[in-house]
Amino acid sequence: MSSHIVVFLPDGACVEVESGQTILDAAGAAGIGIDSACGGQGSCGKCKVLVTLGRPGGHPGDHVSREEVGRGMVLACQATVEDDLVVEVPPESQRGELQILMNQTQMEATLAESDIPLAERVSVGVVPPEKDRERSDVERLVESLRVARGDRFSEFEVSVEALRALPRVARDANWELEALLADSSGPRRDRHRGEIFALEPSGSKRGYGLAVDVGTTTIVVHLIDLDTAGFLDACASLNDQISRGEDVISRIIWTQEHEDGLAELRDAVRRTVNGCVRELTEGQGIAAEEIIGAACVGNTVMMHLLLGIDPAAIRRAPYVPGMRLLPTLRAREVGLQIHPSAPVYLAPCVSSYVGGDVTAGLLATGTGESPRLTLFIDMGTNGEMVIGNREWLMCCSCSAGPAFEGSGVEYGMYATVGAMERVSYDPVTDEVDYMTIGEAKPRGVCGSGLVDALATMLQAGVIDRAGRINLGFPSKRVRVRNERPEFVLVWGEEVGRADDISLGEDGIQNLIRSKSAIYAAATTLLESLGLAASNLEQILVAGAFGNYLDAESAVLIGLLPDIPLERIRFVGNTAVAGARMALLGRQARARMEELAGRMTNFELSAVPGYMDRYVSGLFLPHTDLHLFPSVAEKLALRDQGAAAT
Amino acid sequence: MSSHIVVFLPDGACVEVESGQTILDAAGAAGIGIDSACGGQGSCGKCKVLVTLGRPGGHPGDHVSREEVGRGMVLACQATVEDDLVVEVPPESQRGELQILMNQTQMEATLAESDIPLAERVSVGVVPPEKDRERSDVERLVESLRVARGDRFSEFEVSVEALRALPRVARDANWELEALLADSSGPRRDRHRGEIFALEPSGSKRGYGLAVDVGTTTIVVHLIDLDTAGFLDACASLNDQISRGEDVISRIIWTQEHEDGLAELRDAVRRTVNGCVRELTEGQGIAAEEIIGAACVGNTVMMHLLLGIDPAAIRRAPYVPGMRLLPTLRAREVGLQIHPSAPVYLAPCVSSYVGGDVTAGLLATGTGESPRLTLFIDMGTNGEMVIGNREWLMCCSCSAGPAFEGSGVEYGMYATVGAMERVSYDPVTDEVDYMTIGEAKPRGVCGSGLVDALATMLQAGVIDRAGRINLGFPSKRVRVRNERPEFVLVWGEEVGRADDISLGEDGIQNLIRSKSAIYAAATTLLESLGLAASNLEQILVAGAFGNYLDAESAVLIGLLPDIPLERIRFVGNTAVAGARMALLGRQARARMEELAGRMTNFELSAVPGYMDRYVSGLFLPHTDLHLFPSVAEKLALRDQGAAAT
Repeated sequence: MSSHIVVFLPDGACVEVESGQTILDAAGAAGIGIDSACGGQGSCGKCKVLVTLGRPGGHPGDHVSREEVGRGMVLACQATVEDDLVVEVPPESQRGELQILMNQTQMEATLAESDIPLAERVSVGVVPPEKDRERSDVERLVESLRVARGDRFSEFEVSVEALRALPRVARDANWELEALLADSSGPRRDRHRGEIFALEPSGSKRGYGLAVDVGTTTIVVHLIDLDTAGFLDACASLNDQISRGEDVISRIIWTQEHEDGLAELRDAVRRTVNGCVRELTEGQGIAAEEIIGAACVGNTVMMHLLLGIDPAAIRRAPYVPGMRLLPTLRAREVGLQIHPSAPVYLAPCVSSYVGGDVTAGLLATGTGESPRLTLFIDMGTNGEMVIGNREWLMCCSCSAGPAFEGSGVEYGMYATVGAMERVSYDPVTDEVDYMTIGEAKPRGVCGSGLVDALATMLQAGVIDRAGRINLGFPSKRVRVRNERPEFVLVWGEEVGRADDISLGEDGIQNLIRSKSAIYAAATTLLESLGLAASNLEQILVAGAFGNYLDAESAVLIGLLPDIPLERIRFVGNTAVAGARMALLGRQARARMEELAGRMTNFELSAVPGYMDRYVSGLFLPHTDLHLFPSVAEKLALRDQGAAAT
Repeated sequence: MSSHIVVFLPDGACVEVESGQTILDAAGAAGIGIDSACGGQGSCGKCKVLVTLGRPGGHPGDHVSREEVGRGMVLACQATVEDDLVVEVPPESQRGELQILMNQTQMEATLAESDIPLAERVSVGVVPPEKDRERSDVERLVESLRVARGDRFSEFEVSVEALRALPRVARDANWELEALLADSSGPRRDRHRGEIFALEPSGSKRGYGLAVDVGTTTIVVHLIDLDTAGFLDACASLNDQISRGEDVISRIIWTQEHEDGLAELRDAVRRTVNGCVRELTEGQGIAAEEIIGAACVGNTVMMHLLLGIDPAAIRRAPYVPGMRLLPTLRAREVGLQIHPSAPVYLAPCVSSYVGGDVTAGLLATGTGESPRLTLFIDMGTNGEMVIGNREWLMCCSCSAGPAFEGSGVEYGMYATVGAMERVSYDPVTDEVDYMTIGEAKPRGVCGSGLVDALATMLQAGVIDRAGRINLGFPSKRVRVRNERPEFVLVWGEEVGRADDISLGEDGIQNLIRSKSAIYAAATTLLESLGLAASNLEQILVAGAFGNYLDAESAVLIGLLPDIPLERIRFVGNTAVAGARMALLGRQARARMEELAGRMTNFELSAVPGYMDRYVSGLFLPHTDLHLFPSVAEKLALRDQGAAAT
């Protein structure tokens, strides 16, 4: 019976299921909640999902329109798994209780037999010396592994640490061992090397792995059970480097202007990751040594700093990085406080400003294999984007700033429990409607909420197109605090907190700068390719916004080009999703390298028009309203309404 | 123009020369002194050498008999290099001043272009980023190396240390770099990996290598200039483990009976090697970091202890070692105080008691490629031997003790300057004639001198066949000191030293035990193969005896079987010679692994006859004089002479 891998986005969960199971079954196995009021009968139509890679079997289902089928939409309860699939679960199909980004239901899934994780525990019964006097301990161990894993590896190597452990551990354990095996296949993957990096008595421990997104502002670590490929827990933390500069350029300057600056930033990022690891291991009651592999993605500068490699050349013309394709290192070499010999995979970078997080994103979204012309945007502090399809891929980056990650905005926050992720304001009732992650008490506003807030305030006329608050607006929510105009989103007393949650003009300006940088980069890249936004068949937006991003709001504020909204999709943190795929599969690691090699880098700084576009974009949605006809129409309707009142 | 490698034994020096040069020229280039009174005219006949591997060109020369030509003898000044050759320089053809084992003339030879050293410094001019904006520093570096060394390596890897150094070092050095490159080709050598393990500015340093013989009793380290393949200096030192047991078995027991015993012995052997390294680097005025590679050979137990691997199973039936084929490690992993990332090659072992020193010896002597049935004996504290030819190889080992290395014999010493290496006693004049290494003042007696001394004392009747000193022998050299009979070899006052150099009965008994163990092992192995000593076409004796071993003396005391003396040859420290070859050539490393795989291990302890043979051999030459007809004849002549007087 054949089996296939299904990846669910925006969550990034992977699962292997046997052919013929429904996508809904697979989602269940992966711990992904999909709404299904009729219990999988195909009658309620609530479990619509988008298959973005691979060909599903079964039927799309009755509730799916022809146009939707054309785009890859199916009912999860009717379509079956007959191929490796990447499946996007749109927000409206996600089960409410599972939208909590940091606390997903534990998955109990089976590790794909057909693919090879970065590291694994392999139980081996080694032939005792009495039964084979000719060969040494190592040779008999390797022979046992060849039986157990010969289908995966063409040769085995033994680390000196494992060599040292072997004679005593093996005899103490009566030759029933667990070998910790790393897939150390080189860049040319036609010969597969397995490295035995540690040996332990049988049955003593489990094997866990980490997927790490090393962001400039935020570091996200997922803890994965390697035996089941199941997600256990996640931890997000501000990068400790923050105090040394907000973006990658200021971090590089720090390393140049301070004698031990490089070591300081290296230690800071390692400290942050290790803090997350500690939180996760303590939370799950496991030992750090049981984490036997890690896949890290991050932008090129973050990778340099993590490894302690001087990034100075990245900000000097011709902007050449120290390295792009990274070797798989040992945890002790990267300073990760997990099993010291654990392999650490580092996603390949494309250029100085397009990093492994983008490569991971392309992998997780299947953009590089799609026939459709796609704009993929990873909105981190560095905004990176790729245009292309399965034929070609062109990428660039811009400095977007961390506003959409919540930094530089007074009540902005990372997308975690208590963050307001949907916001809408009704000027008639003067009420702000919102949803928080985890349905918790509101603590602040995450990226998607900030986009919503800007859009709803613009549409209501609370702010003008320059982002200035209209102090004459007839609402008590508009006020001046500390000499700065602001708009109150949540009254503190209503939710039992001392202060009100508001959005002020400083924050708004930071958000406008961020969105303008992204939009200017996207349109510059499009124009350099002789394309218009209307040519795009889809826009995939990745980032730490929250669980979804409202496409209409994003277009309304001019973050994304004005194209039909159904072509815009939010795909979540694809960086960490790609890291998980790399942790769990050799094919994913190989595809990542192939993708990095296929992308052509486009240097925005080489185009004089970019700065003009950026400045023109410092309006809502843009200086030139003709570029945003749907927004112009909405604003005109608003103004007509206002004039009518 | 093609070129070939010539290896000179017993010295182990390697040199590459162009086709058509004479062997004498090659010897000159390798720093090997060959006697040549006529200046290379072919008229004096003093430069006879034995070609043991490869086919020389030119003429054998006029002074070589037909029988000698049949054995591979040529005049070095007439025969030419048309093939890779292994050339033995017999003692009588060595130039006197070059017989000093520890202080050979520096060789100025060219590193073989056709073979690949374990480590090398490669000058690379890397394309600066201004001329190639698309690729990272690492990619441009690798591209330069591909140009410089693409013929040697099919892929390149970069260590994280080199990655860290690259951006700064390269820019400071204006892209003129030296890459430290290790041949890290795996056990399957069809794909050759080169690892850049360090980067330095161009022209800053040289590259040196070590050949290390890790003996149970004595550790010998050769310092080699990797740029020229030239020998620079050697250092020998007693293994610091000595205080924890004389032989490998007592060392293993030490690790079992002391909690930190394994770590203690590991540290002791590392300390000894590092002491030698320090002496060599200080003597040559070079930095330890300039040593960028090392090849180590040693018996299986020594390799376990060097790496800190528990050797306990080696002395428990079924006598299975932890490992035989060893990975190439980094100096820091082996605790060698040289460049911390330098590759350390470890010669492959065959079984628990036949180690990499034997493999190295087979390599250096060409025994595994010879058509002649050969007995190769490596006489260390563990006596190891191989019988075979290019078709098959059978090996075994015995515990010989360190007597022939000078331990357990009061005035015994390692073969270094001042050691008496030839000894003969004339009972008529009561004079002892001797030669010392380096023609220095005598300090003691090395292995070859001890064999000579036993033989000459037996032949003169100073000792009887049980090794007891004949106190009635009419010589003042025979005396009793501290209640123990002894024979004075050198009167202290004659050479300006306080005490006399003598050989007492305790030392004689130790020597007899050693020689009996060797002889018993050899004959047991022969018999198990259905062979007699007379079938042997050659016996090659390796060990730390000195610069030569007198075959007649060795047969006379029963160390070697009584076969025609011209079939017996002393080949020096072939362990360190093999280590040098491994350091300098990939082909040598590959051949070593192939040889280790070809040897079949024969377990002496499984043969009940061995102990009987050992006991029977505790006489000079043996209990059974019929086994030694030539000796019987000599002793009979002696007794007739004595009777006639």
